[in-house]
Order: sequence, then C-alpha cells, then structure tokens
Amino acid sequence: MTIEILSTGEEIRSGAIIDTNAAFISQLLEDAGLPVTRHLSVGDDSGLLVSVFKEISQRAQVAIVTGGLGPTQDDLTTEAAAEAARKKLFLNKNALESIENYFHSKNRQITTPDQKQAYLPEGAQILDNPIGTAPGFEIKIGSCTFFCMPGVPREMKKMIKDIVLPRIIELLGHTRIEQESITYSVYGLSEALVGERVNGLIQKYQGLRIGLRADFPVIYIKLSFHHSDSALAKEVMASSHQWIYEALGDKVFSARNDSMADVVGRLLRQNQATLALAESCTGGLIANWVTDAAGSSDYFLFSGVTYANAAKSDILGVPAALIDQVGAVHEDTAKAMAQGARHAAKATFGLATSGIAGPDGGTADKPVGTVCIGLATEQKAAGFRYHFPYRSRSMNKKVFAMQALDLLRRELQQVNSR
Amino acid sequence: MTIEILSTGEEIRSGAIIDTNAAFISQLLEDAGLPVTRHLSVGDDSGLLVSVFKEISQRAQVAIVTGGLGPTQDDLTTEAAAEAARKKLFLNKNALESIENYFHSKNRQITTPDQKQAYLPEGAQILDNPIGTAPGFEIKIGSCTFFCMPGVPREMKKMIKDIVLPRIIELLGHTRIEQESITYSVYGLSEALVGERVNGLIQKYQGLRIGLRADFPVIYIKLSFHHSDSALAKEVMASSHQWIYEALGDKVFSARNDSMADVVGRLLRQNQATLALAESCTGGLIANWVTDAAGSSDYFLFSGVTYANAAKSDILGVPAALIDQVGAVHEDTAKAMAQGARHAAKATFGLATSGIAGPDGGTADKPVGTVCIGLATEQKAAGFRYHFPYRSRSMNKKVFAMQALDLLRRELQQVNSR
Repeated sequence: MTIEILSTGEEIRSGAIIDTNAAFISQLLEDAGLPVTRHLSVGDDSGLLVSVFKEISQRAQVAIVTGGLGPTQDDLTTEAAAEAARKKLFLNKNALESIENYFHSKNRQITTPDQKQAYLPEGAQILDNPIGTAPGFEIKIGSCTFFCMPGVPREMKKMIKDIVLPRIIELLGHTRIEQESITYSVYGLSEALVGERVNGLIQKYQGLRIGLRADFPVIYIKLSFHHSDSALAKEVMASSHQWIYEALGDKVFSARNDSMADVVGRLLRQNQATLALAESCTGGLIANWVTDAAGSSDYFLFSGVTYANAAKSDILGVPAALIDQVGAVHEDTAKAMAQGARHAAKATFGLATSGIAGPDGGTADKPVGTVCIGLATEQKAAGFRYHFPYRSRSMNKKVFAMQALDLLRRELQQVNSR
Repeated sequence: MTIEILSTGEEIRSGAIIDTNAAFISQLLEDAGLPVTRHLSVGDDSGLLVSVFKEISQRAQVAIVTGGLGPTQDDLTTEAAAEAARKKLFLNKNALESIENYFHSKNRQITTPDQKQAYLPEGAQILDNPIGTAPGFEIKIGSCTFFCMPGVPREMKKMIKDIVLPRIIELLGHTRIEQESITYSVYGLSEALVGERVNGLIQKYQGLRIGLRADFPVIYIKLSFHHSDSALAKEVMASSHQWIYEALGDKVFSARNDSMADVVGRLLRQNQATLALAESCTGGLIANWVTDAAGSSDYFLFSGVTYANAAKSDILGVPAALIDQVGAVHEDTAKAMAQGARHAAKATFGLATSGIAGPDGGTADKPVGTVCIGLATEQKAAGFRYHFPYRSRSMNKKVFAMQALDLLRRELQQVNSR
C-alpha cells in the first residue's frame, strides 16, 4: 500500500510559507497505521501538475492533494486532475449547492469566480467542506484514488478527519491498526549518543519503531508499535520501557513527552513546595518556561532577573564584597543568589544562574559557555560550575536554563524517594 | 534549468516534525533568481532513497538534499547517493580532518560512529560544516549535481549561504540577479489587514514582490525587486517605502527586520537609558526577549518576575492594601509595579505587566486576555488596560509582552523626537 501527499501552490514552492499540511496529514495517517511514503510540493504550473498527477497515479493507491481549489486563475488543481484522468469538467450540482449553502450561511453574495469551484471532473465525488467556500473531490486516476482538498489548514484538517480518513480506511479495506506509543524526554546526551544507545532496541523487537527528535538541548525518543494483538503490544512496550531506562538512566526525565519545566512543576506540586529563581545569564528564560504551564502560580513565586550586579546585591542580598572578590560568575555568588531569591520570596527552593552566554565576555578563566548554578533548600545550599561547548548565545541560554532545572529535578526526586 | 529539493528523514516523512528547511532553501534560491521546481520528502528507506536520487538525476540539473548524514544507522543519505552514482564509499581525509577539528574545538572525544561521517562516495567533494559534526558533500549523478547537507537547520543554513549557493551560481554560469529588498516589522494589525492594505502596492509597481510572514503577534512584510537597473530599483524601493509608512503608520516598528526587543534596546542605548521590568502574567518572557540581544547588559538591569502577590509587595514595594483593594490585575497595580521595579533597580524606565493569560482565572470583569501595563519614567507613571481576544496561554503571554514593549517603544520615540 503506497500513500503519497501532494501540496500545491506557488507560496509553498517558493518558500514564502512553510507547508504544515503535509506534516499534519502524515501524522494523522501514521497514527491510523497508514504510513505515507512521500511528500511532494510543486507550484501553480499546469503542465507540471498534470504530469505529477500521472506520476503519482502510477506509484500510489491513495494520494492526498492540498491547495489549488479556490476561485482564482492560479487555482489549477481541478483542471490538472481532470486532464490527467482524461475527463471533462462538468458543473457538479451537489458542489454548487454546497457552495451556495456556505455563502448563504455567511450572508454573502455568490460571484461567478466562486461558481467556478463547482466544476468537477466527470466521475468525481464531492468532498463536503462545511467551513469554507471550496469543496473537495475524490477522483480515480489509473489505480490511484486522489483526494483533493483546499490548502487552508483549518478547512483541510476538518475534512481529512471527518471525511477523507474514514473513506481511505473503507477504500483500502484497512482494519484500523492500533498503535501503542510512548515518548521519552532526554537531557544530557547528544542525539548521536542517544541514537547509538537505542540502536540495540530496534534489533530486539521486530516492528518496533523509534523516532528521534531534537529540540535543543532535549532529545525526544518516540517508540511506537503497530499491532492487532494488544497483549503482545503491551509486553513489547513494557520491556522496551525498561530497556530505555537501563540504557539511558536518569537522563530520561519524562516518559510522557513532557518538558523539563512540566516535570519540575509536577514534582514541586507533589511536594507542596514552592520555587524562587535568580537569573542572570538565563535572562528570564527559566521563569518563562516554568510559567508556560497553566496553574504554575501554585508553586512558582518569583524570579529575580538580576542582570546588573547592583540588582544582585540590592534585591537578592548578595554581598557586594563577595561579587568584588570572586566575580558575578562564581559558584559562591550563584549559591548566594539562590539563597537570596529563596529568602526574598519565602520559597521552599531557590535556584540561580550566573554565567557567560556570549558571544562576548569570556575570559581564559571563564570562557563563553561557563555557567554557575546555585541551589538552596531549607537545610542546605550549594553552588556548581559547568562549561558547555556552544558559542551561540541562544543555545547557551537554553542549556544553562535546562541544566539548572535538571539539578532541581534531581534534588526533588531525591526528596521524593526518601 | 531545473532545481529540486529533497528532504530526508523518518521524522519528516511521518509528520513528527515540520520540514522548515525546504521553505528556507526555496526562498534563498528564489531571491537569487533560481526558482526551485519541486520539494520532495521521503523517510529513511534505503531502496526508496536510491530510486529517488536516480529519478531526480533524470529531471534536474541541481538538487539540494538535507538530512541523513549523521552517525546513526538510520542516516542513509551518503550510502544511497553512492549507490545511485554507482560509486564506492571511501574514507575522505578532508572530511575526517574536518570532523576531528570540530571535536577538537569542543574538547570532545571522537567515536567510531562519528568517524562514519567521513566516508564519502568516490569523486564527491566535501562541503565543510564548521558548526556541526557531519560535513556535507557534492556529487554528480548523471547530469545532475547533488548538494547533500545535514538536516539540522542551523548547520544547513550556514552551509547553503556560505558554500552551496555560490557553488550553484558558479555551476550554472548564472549571473546573480541583483535584488533590492527590505523587510518591515509590524505590530498591531492582523495578517489579513496588512495584506489588504499592501495590496495596492503590488498593482503599482510591476515586478515588485511582497511576501508576508507572521510570527505571532508580529507580521513581517518583505518587499523585493529583481533588477538589472539599480537606479530604477532604488527609486521603486524608496517610493514603496514611503507607501508602506503611509498605509501602516507607526504600526511599522522596524524597516530592517528587527525584533521589537532589538528596537527598544537600540532606543534605550541611544538615550543612554536603562530598563527595569516587573512581570507577572508575562512570566519572564519580556526579560528573555530583551536579553536575547548580545550586549543587552548595557541597558537592561533587572526584571522582577513576581508571580506571587507577596513578591509584588515585598520585592517591588507595591502596597498590599492596593492589591487587596483593586486586585493584582489593575492599572494602578501595574503602575505601582513599574515604579517599584524602576526604583529597586535605579533604572531610567520601569515597565510592568499584570494580566490573565489563561486558560483559567478569568472573571466577567477581567476575562482571559486582559492585561494591565504600567510604565514609569523619572517624571511620570501611568497604567493602561487592554483586552486581547486570544484563548491560548502562550499567545496571550506573547501579545502581552509585545504590547508592553510597544508602549515603551512609543515613549522612547517621543523622547527622541523632542
């Protein structure tokens, strides 16, 4: 079974917009056990469109086409499909009625270009579009069935879920395949290292699929297993789960596709604990991540983004003499910042960063990529120093922030396991 | 001349990630007068990759390939290219040296999988990748020259600009078409409204191209004009520039593709002024944007991310009685927060946000999407209230932060124009 996607339009071909439709369609079909083989995009070129329709009809059983159904002169999909199928265009009464209904519902007058959208190739079946002007259609060319839909993501998404996917399943006599899947979030290993370590797992279970995705500095591992036997699937997934933790240990911080801030937030909530931050080099990024979670006000109290040294002293109470003596980027300063933030906000935990994100400001002693992190609890406080090899300011901000949250995660997990 | 793009990788084929590389490459080539004809994506399937390489070699003169050059077993591009070209893989000394240099610069040990990346097809030329482990390569298959690059956007972008595009121009004997272009950043209008207002401009100048790109809540308008006559081009661009400001007024905050935080930073620097923030609903996002600019420590002193009301009082000195009386989300509270931040950090300007980002926490009086913004200077302080129609927490955080920075921008521009 071969399924292909064709995205049409000058704006996609020329790169003016990013084609998000293809990814959406692929993922929807993938989850239904219907993997897509190819995505193809071409512009509004009539001859090329016809030849692409023909090409696809020789390779695929099902093709999903988006774009080019609108009322303007550069909407060429319908004509190209008709020509590739050697059919004429006819006014489709159902299509006209559907367009008229749409305009009626919006209290708008229908115009001649709008009516153009009701002309479909002979033998095509209309695919209703309740939330837009252009209906789609289904047409067979050779042994391939084409589903042509508008390119507007909102309209396309509704049509593919409600009409096209059920129709494909019917057409292919496809028993909707069940899928077990789980996504692990990993911090502290490169993509290459994660790939190397999980390689053995692919060999172990036939049919188990592994996808790696990097969102710097986190690596997401998606394990998925298509099956018709749910006992087997559960066994494979449980055993793979154990395997992943044996291979990657506590570098895995979530087995449910969470962000680090989500994990830390949940641990804080479980412990009825609160958090105060003191951020220098991370410039508010940790607070921004933490507050992306709805309900974070339950555990997050305060971040003092103290870029100026005076702010470190005045607001967090870090002794100016300490900064003079050891510098702003130092374990002791970070520790004092964490204690100061914790104290200022009366929080359970204080977490602080001070470092050199670059591109300038590095010294031989403290090169770009150096970060000091302070962690303060009721009982203790400590400062740590790390050096990361990145030269980009934005990468450093991210890895510094992630390292700080990871330290807190480990502290919270220890508290939890006591 | 036919140019095609091939994006490889399971994560793209399956829709786990959106292929942004193809759009970037298309746009870069389009701007150089080299339109791309097709984008194609396939997964990590060795046989399919080989046949796609062969197909493309029969249609195109140039192909740009991304992905599949890494060290893991599902990185298959190099082998597929070799097989399609009927060449063997050899250890390429230049490639090995380039990889070793990269690891050396990061103080990291090179492993066997890393070395795999130095094996290139016989006759291939290495394309240097100074910021990543996998070098790319150029290889001729039939009459088509393939440029294979890593899929990591940051690495790919640098390589295509610095090496591949100049090489394609050389290869095709293409006279680089000159282009004048300018990108405006707009805040405060929807994409549809911006599109409607700039429509007249397209009709006015033949050959002038307009691209709109939305990065919520900012709309970027790119005007470009390909020409061989630079006097004409300058005239068209100057007149279009005036047209844009007449149509969009001070909603245009930059004519050089800047972010709002960059514009505000530049204005602060020009005025030798400093900034302190007090962020509640924006949760550190404003500080994070401001500190993304290298050198921002020259003008940015402090942000108090005061999620808890106690922090608003204790750290910013907002009277607890005021919060009790009018609530945390109120013009007067925002004004007091701005004054408090300004005072705490001894800054020229204080800017504060307090609002309801959602999804919960709204009331009839203060629904989700309500934000109060305070702005304090040496002479005065004021509080403002806005309501935005978004239901998403992340959209609200962004639009609240942007609105606050835009207020400060307008204040700074007034100061400047005095």
